[in-house]
Amino acid sequence: MDVRCHAERVVLPTSPPETVACCAPLVRQPLGAADAVALARTLKAVADPARLRLLSLVAAHDGGEACVCDLVDALDLSQPTVSHHLRVLVEAGLLTREKRGVWAYYALVPAALNALAAVLTAPAGGARSRSAC
Amino acid sequence: MDVRCHAERVVLPTSPPETVACCAPLVRQPLGAADAVALARTLKAVADPARLRLLSLVAAHDGGEACVCDLVDALDLSQPTVSHHLRVLVEAGLLTREKRGVWAYYALVPAALNALAAVLTAPAGGARSRSAC
Repeated sequence: MDVRCHAERVVLPTSPPETVACCAPLVRQPLGAADAVALARTLKAVADPARLRLLSLVAAHDGGEACVCDLVDALDLSQPTVSHHLRVLVEAGLLTREKRGVWAYYALVPAALNALAAVLTAPAGGARSRSAC
Repeated sequence: MDVRCHAERVVLPTSPPETVACCAPLVRQPLGAADAVALARTLKAVADPARLRLLSLVAAHDGGEACVCDLVDALDLSQPTVSHHLRVLVEAGLLTREKRGVWAYYALVPAALNALAAVLTAPAGGARSRSAC
């Protein structure tokens, strides 16, 4: 048995993921205060080099999911650190965690990532009628 | 040079003081360490409620640009705080700043916001062939 993966199973919480923030595209209408707080929370979850690499590794892994042991091997980080980052991503609703036997598998939630992308997308040709380039 | 990878990269404008992170979509291939650091830096710039509201206010303002005085009026923050957040957004390449007379005007850089969105976009139907929903 891979002891590291067994330890991972113990460390991660099982709390339900938060709902990913969703609001109108930023450039369409002024963002309200509450929406801004929710959206910033989700963006903070991805605004970390290790978490971005974990998201990418999970999504690009065979079958679109990965065991924590695959992820620890790919990053130059300790398992507790990887577990912390995975927990943040699960709590933000960007990854799902599924336990099978002693292994925990993580999969991307594409809809959550797409919701973030949709909020940030600006209309082609500039903000409204003006190009700022 | 790997032409295929070069073509896949999302190229962002180079005019702002700091180049916005650019890399292939997260779900297409594992993100490298350097790209992850650059992308996280840009995401951190937007992962703040006040800065998200400022981006949105600027983009939705008449003409797609706004004076700092308009922005201070719209947010419940001091002018120094608003100026700090605007500076972060300009340094991240997401806003441009143009001084006209005594006023500084801020405009969105749509290509920079779109590049962030493109990096985050996941393929419809799931990460690769698997739906995680």
